[in-house]
Parts: sequence; structure tokens; C-alpha cells
Amino acid sequence: MEWKHGGDWAGFEQEFGVPPLDFSANVSPLGVPESVKAALRNTAENADRYPDPFCRALRDALAEQERCAAGQILCGNGAADLIYRIAWAMKPRRALVTAPTFSEYGAALQTVGCMVASYPLKPENEFRIGRNFLEFITPETDVVFLCEPNNPTGLTTSRPLLLEILERCRAVGANLIADECFNDFLDEPEEHTLRPWLNEFPNLLILKAFTKLYAMAGVRLGYALCSDADWLDSLRQAGPPWNVSGLAQAAGVAALQETGYVQRLRKLIQTERPRLRKALQQKGLGVIPGEANYLLFQSWIPLVGLLQKRGILLRSCASYEGLNDTWYRTAIRTREENERLLAALKEVLQ
Amino acid sequence: MEWKHGGDWAGFEQEFGVPPLDFSANVSPLGVPESVKAALRNTAENADRYPDPFCRALRDALAEQERCAAGQILCGNGAADLIYRIAWAMKPRRALVTAPTFSEYGAALQTVGCMVASYPLKPENEFRIGRNFLEFITPETDVVFLCEPNNPTGLTTSRPLLLEILERCRAVGANLIADECFNDFLDEPEEHTLRPWLNEFPNLLILKAFTKLYAMAGVRLGYALCSDADWLDSLRQAGPPWNVSGLAQAAGVAALQETGYVQRLRKLIQTERPRLRKALQQKGLGVIPGEANYLLFQSWIPLVGLLQKRGILLRSCASYEGLNDTWYRTAIRTREENERLLAALKEVLQ
Repeated sequence: MEWKHGGDWAGFEQEFGVPPLDFSANVSPLGVPESVKAALRNTAENADRYPDPFCRALRDALAEQERCAAGQILCGNGAADLIYRIAWAMKPRRALVTAPTFSEYGAALQTVGCMVASYPLKPENEFRIGRNFLEFITPETDVVFLCEPNNPTGLTTSRPLLLEILERCRAVGANLIADECFNDFLDEPEEHTLRPWLNEFPNLLILKAFTKLYAMAGVRLGYALCSDADWLDSLRQAGPPWNVSGLAQAAGVAALQETGYVQRLRKLIQTERPRLRKALQQKGLGVIPGEANYLLFQSWIPLVGLLQKRGILLRSCASYEGLNDTWYRTAIRTREENERLLAALKEVLQ
Repeated sequence: MEWKHGGDWAGFEQEFGVPPLDFSANVSPLGVPESVKAALRNTAENADRYPDPFCRALRDALAEQERCAAGQILCGNGAADLIYRIAWAMKPRRALVTAPTFSEYGAALQTVGCMVASYPLKPENEFRIGRNFLEFITPETDVVFLCEPNNPTGLTTSRPLLLEILERCRAVGANLIADECFNDFLDEPEEHTLRPWLNEFPNLLILKAFTKLYAMAGVRLGYALCSDADWLDSLRQAGPPWNVSGLAQAAGVAALQETGYVQRLRKLIQTERPRLRKALQQKGLGVIPGEANYLLFQSWIPLVGLLQKRGILLRSCASYEGLNDTWYRTAIRTREENERLLAALKEVLQ
């Protein structure tokens, strides 16, 4: 059973007997918010109830947060659940993704026999999407997946170009899936999200998740925003009901009531991102100037095994199309944890 | 957004402002085991970790419980997740189910364009499968779904006939999915399960769930048993990774360490099943002699709305193929709760 994502702490524990310091998963280093823990504890008492299949309370809270109608929201068992539902509901024949990007778009599309074309992001262009991306969107294209900011590069596309892409998709009859799971880690999330264009573009679907922002990876909770009610309903019907656990729904409602958490988190990432980037560069590593809570960098010395021996999980990017085993992705964590990573890297690179 | 299952307590609460007494969902009336609650509370602390995608600890515990190899187990986000994965991984062209039965088999199969034939279970045959079921399994049949005991009838098929069905499936190259989610509510579960035939029949896949037996419907946890490792792996790859939350995995491990809970539960159901059945019959209702933790019965007076006004949720079986709006399914709950149902029925039927 192969595994091509980060965050396999269980495999680490099985091998080494202790939990790792996990830089391989891009989750908030501030840990689970106390209110979320409390909600999980309280919901444990009523865990005999089936989850609300329509996630009514959670969607009402999300509607307020995202300034949209509750009917424009569909919740899922993590964003990955929704990615597969998109594939199953649409059964697209031709899709366009970037390379590298999050691998589950391609994996989900391939389960329905979709041909997936890749737009190559090149190191010489700093892994950025150029205007020629528009030429890759043809009348044959059914769906485009864009990860903004991209995973694993952490880079964004300018909003004017995103809007051109959205227009181009509409013109050729394609849907655009904008995966904004890491948008809230940007310094200015509101300047980048496509959410203000939801109502104007029913061919736009935005994916978001609680997983990373609220350190809820073990809970599983993501959601889709879309102004096309029929499309959302087809996604709902494309997979099992009760996909969002009662625990996840309660945790989500609690997380949305957090006010200081996301601000503290964004501030921490804002401070630590340039520090970690500079420190990696000073070690002679080539670092891509990512804007989210993780950094992509290149090392000619293999790092994963050497760091693992030092109790640290790092994400190799060898499995990403368009990258190879010289590329790594590291999460940005607390000052102290980042220092531990840097100290271990110092040993390893000597 | 239509809903054709039971357990919509959230809709009830939204309408009536109080939680219902829920006879519409077939879960254990003993509530969430204390050890499961404790596991959920403890796991809340580490909810920032991604779930183990391979459910290693849970599968080890299940292997012991089910006396099979861990490699013969795949866990899912409830049994429904696995039902959809079966459809997606196999993409069968022709399937056979009974009518009535659990509606998600047909719903999942239809998402892949499968033609679903129904074997009619008739009231005049007490809704039982006859030997002529074998004739419905033809060389064109790719997969057969059997719910044992069946939902909503609560009836089982004799083991000799089940083995004939299994043999017949193998002979024509079909797979048999035996949904045993309610098997553990039978008086003699070991006398009915097909588990001893797993190794002999790689075309057999057994579905089970924690949902009902351990009152964990809000947690979402089910699993599949199968001796064909490639088939299980194709199910795993057919949908999103991380489908089983870290909370569910910990809750499952805790539930399997419970010893007295299932015995107490089975004893309660054994006592209350004949009592409730007799009491319903005495009210002039036609009751099917179900063997699980629920009873199917017929009433010529519409019951759902009248009971709802009395704070009770009952499952109408109008949406089941082969039944109509005169049929109802009630869970079997504690003595006191069953008495409340009977008292309300007395008022309603007068």
C-alpha cells in the first residue's frame, strides 16, 4: 500500500516508537483550538445520533463567515471527499491541472477515466502560471483545477489572470475548481480569494477546509462554495450521505466562533515564513518564495531519511508530477519547532 | 433536498425545538459506551494530526475480533462509504438486489450507470428470499448485494441457501456483498455470518459497522472483510484517502475492548423484541417477525406525523422499493422508551 502524501506519523511511530515532529503536513502549528476540543468532548456524549446529513447548523455558521447563502455551501469529509465527488458527479472527459499540484485532483479524475492534461510549472519561471495557461483551456476542456496558493509551491496567481482564466472557462463551457484550502494563510486572504465572483460565475466552485487552518486534520472537514445549486446538489448525491460526522460538524461550528486564533496564526506565519526561508537559503538550499504556511525547496542531499532519524518528518516531493526527489516541502511551524528543524538540517547538511 | 432515511433528529429539532425520541434510526439504545466517549475526548487533544490512512491500530484490533488477517480488512467512513467505493472500484454493469432493502446499494450503483435488477420480497412469502433467487443470478450479473439480516424487514436467509447463493455467484463470475451490519443483533450471530467462508470465497465481501452496534452513528465507522487483497486495495484507491477520521479510529479501538456492552445489548434486544412485537400485534398492527434490533410493521393509519407531534420519530418505509406508505420500521429501544412508543401509538390508533 503506497502512500504519497505527508503526515504519516502513525508509520513513523510504528517504526521509531515515538511521535515525530511533523513538518510533512501543512497544518496550523498552534494546535487544535480549545473551543474545538471542547466541542468534540461535548459531542462525544451524543455520538449515537446520526450526523445531520444537511449540516444545517454548520452551513448557517459558514454562510455568515463566508458572506454567502447557506444554499451555496456543501460540506464534505475533508476537501478530498469533495474533490472525488466533483469527479463522480461531473464525470468529465478532459481536465486541466498544473504540474506540480495537489495529486488528488488527478487521482480523483482518473477514477472516472478522465484524460488529465498538465500545464507545466517550471522552476525557471519560478513555478508560476503564465498567460499562456489560457491557451490550454480549449472547447474540449470540461474542468480546470487550480490550487491557489498552489500546493506544494505556495505561490499564487495574480487575480487579474485568475479572472481571465475564469472568463475563458466560461467561454468554452468549462468549470473552474479553485482550491483555496491554503488561502487563509496568505498575508492578505481577501485580496486573493475568488469568492466575490461566486455569484457572477456559476461555473466556479471554491474548495476550502478546516483541516489546515484550525489544525483539525484528524477530524475531517472541508466545504465547497458554489452559486449553482444544481451542481452542488449533484455533488451531494454523488457520494454517501452522512459523510460529515457529527463530531466534525460541532467542531466546525466551534472553530468559526474562534476570533483570535486565525489572527495569531497568520501573524506567526508572517513572522516565521521569511525567517525560515532565509535560514534555508543560508544553508545553500534553493527556496521557492511561497506565500502560504509551507515552503518548497531543493536539496541535492537526500533529507527525509536523515531527518527521520532525528525525529522529524519532512515531505519529499518526488511523487509530484513536475518535481523530483531533490525537492522537499516543509511546513512553517512555531519559532522553537522551526529552530529544531534548522538545527537538524545543519547536522545533516554538514 | 430530499431525505429518505431515518434519524433526521436535526430536522425535528429545527421544527419542534426539542430533541426527539428517535425510533427511526436502528442504533443501540444503550448509548455510546463510556470507553468510546473517553477515547473521543482523548483524541480531541491530537485532532491536528492527519488520520492514519491505513488505520493500522484499528485494523489490528479488528483482525483479532473478526479472527482474520489485518490485510483482509478495509475501514471506511461508515459502511455507506464502502458501498460507494464498491460501486466506483468495480463499475459493475448489472447488479442484483432485493426489494425492499437498504436503498444506498441502488443509489451507489446508479452513480456508475449500473443496471440494478430487483428480486421482489413479498409479504405473502413473509418477505423471505426463496430458492428461486438463484435463478436471478445469471452470467450477466456482476454483483449481488444481500443485507443479512435485511433492512427494513429484520429477516435472515438460511445459511445453506446463502452458501448456494455464494456458490452460484462464483460459478457465474459474480461478487457477493453480504451486508452484515445488523448481524450482531441476532440472537446467534455466529450461526449466521458468512465470515467463515471468507478465505474459500474471494468473491465474497462482508460489510460491517460500528454505527449501530456501539451507538456510534455520529462518529462514522464501518469496515469491509474480504480475502481478495487486490479487490480491497482497489476499493481503497477508488475514493479519497484519510476517509476514516482519527477520532473514529480511536473510538473503534476502544469499542472493541468493550466486553459487557454487546452482551447487555443483545440481552436487551432479546427481551424487548418479542415484547414490542406482541404489543404492536395487540394493537392490530401487522408485524413482520424480524430477528434484529428493529421491526417492520403495517398500519392503515398514517403514523409519522401523529407520533412526531408526540416527540417521537418513526421511520416511514414509503421510499423503499417494494413497500409503500402503510409500512413502518421501528427501532427496538429500552423497556421504558418502548413503553413511551406504545403509549403514543395507543393514543394515535384510538
